[in-house]
Amino acid sequence: MAAVFGFKGCQKIRGPQIRNLLEAKDFFLFDCDGVIWHGEKAISGATAVVNSLIRRGKNVFFVTNNCTRPRENYVLKFSRLGFNGVILEQIFSSSYCSALYLRDVVKVRGQVFVIGCDGLRRELLQAAIPCVEEADDPGATIYDCPLAANVKAVLVGHDDKMTFLKLAKASCYLRDPECLFLATDNDPWHPLSGGRILPGSGSLTAALEVASGRKATVIGKPSRFMFECISSQFSGVDPAQCLMVGDRLEVDMLFGSNCGLDTMLTLTGVSQIEEAQEYRNSELTSNHSFVPDYVVDTIADFLPAFEELEEQSS
Amino acid sequence: MAAVFGFKGCQKIRGPQIRNLLEAKDFFLFDCDGVIWHGEKAISGATAVVNSLIRRGKNVFFVTNNCTRPRENYVLKFSRLGFNGVILEQIFSSSYCSALYLRDVVKVRGQVFVIGCDGLRRELLQAAIPCVEEADDPGATIYDCPLAANVKAVLVGHDDKMTFLKLAKASCYLRDPECLFLATDNDPWHPLSGGRILPGSGSLTAALEVASGRKATVIGKPSRFMFECISSQFSGVDPAQCLMVGDRLEVDMLFGSNCGLDTMLTLTGVSQIEEAQEYRNSELTSNHSFVPDYVVDTIADFLPAFEELEEQSS
Repeated sequence: MAAVFGFKGCQKIRGPQIRNLLEAKDFFLFDCDGVIWHGEKAISGATAVVNSLIRRGKNVFFVTNNCTRPRENYVLKFSRLGFNGVILEQIFSSSYCSALYLRDVVKVRGQVFVIGCDGLRRELLQAAIPCVEEADDPGATIYDCPLAANVKAVLVGHDDKMTFLKLAKASCYLRDPECLFLATDNDPWHPLSGGRILPGSGSLTAALEVASGRKATVIGKPSRFMFECISSQFSGVDPAQCLMVGDRLEVDMLFGSNCGLDTMLTLTGVSQIEEAQEYRNSELTSNHSFVPDYVVDTIADFLPAFEELEEQSS
Repeated sequence: MAAVFGFKGCQKIRGPQIRNLLEAKDFFLFDCDGVIWHGEKAISGATAVVNSLIRRGKNVFFVTNNCTRPRENYVLKFSRLGFNGVILEQIFSSSYCSALYLRDVVKVRGQVFVIGCDGLRRELLQAAIPCVEEADDPGATIYDCPLAANVKAVLVGHDDKMTFLKLAKASCYLRDPECLFLATDNDPWHPLSGGRILPGSGSLTAALEVASGRKATVIGKPSRFMFECISSQFSGVDPAQCLMVGDRLEVDMLFGSNCGLDTMLTLTGVSQIEEAQEYRNSELTSNHSFVPDYVVDTIADFLPAFEELEEQSS
């Protein structure tokens, strides 16, 4: 696919090459954190890029492993940060897709025990999936706390109120082989300011995988499921016409690769170009799935290409 | 070693074979939970076995991955459950050995951030190793909480007061490549009554390994370090003269195998003989390290052998 442009494998692209890509692709999938914003601050130029893509009639989707907010909060955030008219249907978060998976794929019959933030629980409830009430007595322990009946799935996401008791309860529910084990995503950690990091869903999932002796089914990137959600809701989504733009090699580039999409790494987030080059040069073939087709410093590098296209058409 | 008895590989042994083993070995290493007691209840016959071994002049050691109590509490527990005269020096817990490792092996210069119970912290303080005070404001988050200076090691053990904030802080400390990453043990889970389970240190360690992108150095079984602690404190400990008795194939049998000891699985705890047989029949050579040399239903199976020996000598 990327071969039509005459190269393959994490090369920096600029003006005319970006213009060709913008013309060639109809579907643009963007990761959010580290790609179009950092927390509450849009990355410089990102609003203009997204607004231009939409104005030019491109299909834009947001595929995020951040499971802490329900989709309606994303709509508000896009608007607050200056993105024009991003609607609910463009947003594919790991919490929303987890709800779809539980409702439509496995058709869960029973309660779901959630390790995660309120946003995740809210997505499930909107899909009419009952969640176990998780209010514990302050002094409760796994030795004597009540366990809910009819728990048919444990779903792990980012949870900054994670406790040992939640982990222990989830481990007990997973003793039942009929209880499904799902994770919103497998992100190991997220960068914070000042060099701090935040353990991600992947960290909590690993704890539960060890305690239960089971492997979680991962809903978010790099699993293909988010792309299947997009394809099932929008007709004519051809992988060859898609560009996946993200900042994490092991998450976003692998996701693109798993779904047969061209991939672009933007250097405003977690991964560095040197890491991409290491994967490219690795003798381990499986590492090649982490290599982006294209690399830009920032998605603001799209802007000159838009200007050229405007000039052409005027 | 076991070959002198004409077989190798998880065979049940009885009367005369056990008597031969009792005569051949001078050092008996016992795991505790699931081997000599279940919680506050000694396994039937276990007190008589341990008391007889000690009376016959055998060297008896207790090697436990349970890091929740300081050694003096073990002494009290042995006495309370009817074991005669077990002293501090016979007890090698993962918390005690972690303190030895920090003090004598890596000679840590700085504070240790502990994820673990008070018992673990107490062992470190007794070895004069300073621990980070861990009292957090109830509303503190990783975004704004203070981080301690001069943290030179993170030590993870069983912690039933584990929180997301502790995990996040530990992840931040481990960004410093000079900060050591240790785990008291890697036990994945522990059985509770009523089919419940308790996530073990290995579960919390996995969470931190994913969040930090680093691997912990494990102090407890199956690492050799506990045996090195015994050897350094008692002269003449010859692996060929030792029998390691435990209930977990992946912990106790592997520990014995790693240290060159004969191993015995007792079926009063976690592992079943069928699992041992599966490991024995596995084509994966590394699985053979989990196979016990001997299997007994319970260490009470030693008792008839003692009786025979008494008769012989009377």
